[in-house]
Amino acid sequence: MRGWGWPMSVLGIDIGGSGVKAGVVTPDGTIHGHSLVPLAKGMDKQTGPILEAAIRAGREALGKAGREGVQATAVGIGVPGVVDAKNGVVVASANLEGLRGVALAKHVSEALGMRASLANDANAAALGEARFGGHGELDSLVLFTLGTGIGGGIVIGGRIVTGHNGFAGELGHVRIEMSNPRPCGCKRWGCLEAYAGNLSIVKRAHEALADDWKKTSCLHQPAMDPEFSAARVFEAAVQGDPLATRLVNETAMALAVGAVNMIHALNPELVLFAGGMTCAGPWFLELIQSLARELPIEGVDVNGRIRFARLGDKAGVVGAAAVGAG
Amino acid sequence: MRGWGWPMSVLGIDIGGSGVKAGVVTPDGTIHGHSLVPLAKGMDKQTGPILEAAIRAGREALGKAGREGVQATAVGIGVPGVVDAKNGVVVASANLEGLRGVALAKHVSEALGMRASLANDANAAALGEARFGGHGELDSLVLFTLGTGIGGGIVIGGRIVTGHNGFAGELGHVRIEMSNPRPCGCKRWGCLEAYAGNLSIVKRAHEALADDWKKTSCLHQPAMDPEFSAARVFEAAVQGDPLATRLVNETAMALAVGAVNMIHALNPELVLFAGGMTCAGPWFLELIQSLARELPIEGVDVNGRIRFARLGDKAGVVGAAAVGAG
Repeated sequence: MRGWGWPMSVLGIDIGGSGVKAGVVTPDGTIHGHSLVPLAKGMDKQTGPILEAAIRAGREALGKAGREGVQATAVGIGVPGVVDAKNGVVVASANLEGLRGVALAKHVSEALGMRASLANDANAAALGEARFGGHGELDSLVLFTLGTGIGGGIVIGGRIVTGHNGFAGELGHVRIEMSNPRPCGCKRWGCLEAYAGNLSIVKRAHEALADDWKKTSCLHQPAMDPEFSAARVFEAAVQGDPLATRLVNETAMALAVGAVNMIHALNPELVLFAGGMTCAGPWFLELIQSLARELPIEGVDVNGRIRFARLGDKAGVVGAAAVGAG
Repeated sequence: MRGWGWPMSVLGIDIGGSGVKAGVVTPDGTIHGHSLVPLAKGMDKQTGPILEAAIRAGREALGKAGREGVQATAVGIGVPGVVDAKNGVVVASANLEGLRGVALAKHVSEALGMRASLANDANAAALGEARFGGHGELDSLVLFTLGTGIGGGIVIGGRIVTGHNGFAGELGHVRIEMSNPRPCGCKRWGCLEAYAGNLSIVKRAHEALADDWKKTSCLHQPAMDPEFSAARVFEAAVQGDPLATRLVNETAMALAVGAVNMIHALNPELVLFAGGMTCAGPWFLELIQSLARELPIEGVDVNGRIRFARLGDKAGVVGAAAVGAG
């Protein structure tokens, strides 16, 4: 782990649709003064309450960490959405509409009295993993964040690839199917997310169950629960349910293709998967790896190049702090 | 055009399977002292003759340019294959087997008495287009090179993305089809190259003609010629042949997906297509553009972002020189 290479601690503020997490991160990647300020329902559309929550979470973390003797000298902020990193402005955010057009870095910098930097949260998580994921010294990295949908972040030369308009890393919408594409949540077709996002796994399960006339799968009953989730499909696969196994295999294949596509394009040191799906366990990673091994062109070795991310719940705050460290 | 930002001229040496091109490139992108040394058949497997040809072409170019008053202060070399750019060594080259493991930059540097840098030829072409393609000041760029197969190069932050092992930019092997994938020349399946490489267009044409029982297409006769090429398919499409039109539409769709995939992943300023297929004309670019417009997620505008490369035959030497300029 190389941290950010100089002995400063950085405040990380991770703003999400349901609340703000903050903490002061020391150069070894430890979070001090962790604090959490929830956002009441409906507040995601209002600028003031989001800003207040972000600043309050930041102040709380600074205070708590300060009492432990840890002082931050800069702040990094992660938000879901498209970000103008250079100017510290949120361009658009589906989950935090109230932040659209807000000069977030400036507001937070003025309120907390320190230099502030802004990044997309998945981009920030990628930088956090590159620096603090315990993968060794990483100069380049592609991170897929697996959730309801699929996002991502790319690090090249030790820096986030933000892209010309700030939306680089939309890895869930790299298209992997042409001839018989599934509809995606983005209203387009054949995206990786349409095969391997949690929501799409649930949809695919419902479709497969509708075709399972003989009711051989153990998922028929669970699937009627409105809380039925991708996690349940993974559990059934572990129990040997053939329908669930097929769904999980297809998901792993889509992720393997997504990973190897990025390896062919960018040849990063590592490709990482983060998010709830990685809780399925090492067997799921091994499945993705074994499928990926068959995909690259000659001379390209993906062994050891595809892994799960390691920061888990810490990724938001640590990633934001990594952005603040510059 | 920003050139390389300082008033020096650079020798570019472009080594290909059939010969070496060289020229001294001034900061405005003009080639002086253009020279060409052919490689006799079979020489591609021998180190000595390739090195001699490269150095001879370089010396000729330096001499000719010198007589025009243009002096080079560094040399850049482009080769097909995987390159260790940092150490100036060719890792592997399918078309120039004799260069495998050769410290090409060191040899050329010693022979010509100037600093030498090495890059993959498609990577070099991408840097050349970013600096001298007349597209304005480009900080980031994705280039697809359309030939027998499909290669590519990526520029981010004004620099070539070489990748951790030197093979970044294998854009022809980004997979775009899962459920019914065509075999690719790389022995894998569903790659972009399997749909839009020249060789694959010829193969798809033969398949389509075999299915065309009523012999409605004008391509039946030309397809029996061993010289039958993708260019002939494009000509037939221009003449309104329905079978050829369908093949060209499918090719354009594959290229549109390839381009938009890279836009979602990297959000570059431009995506460029280079190579023989671009000779089809502006209508083919417009077709790709119109298909690409339907592909991106909301908020992503691809208008004006997809173009043809402009350096044409000059790309090899100008790209190599751009690499040499550092």
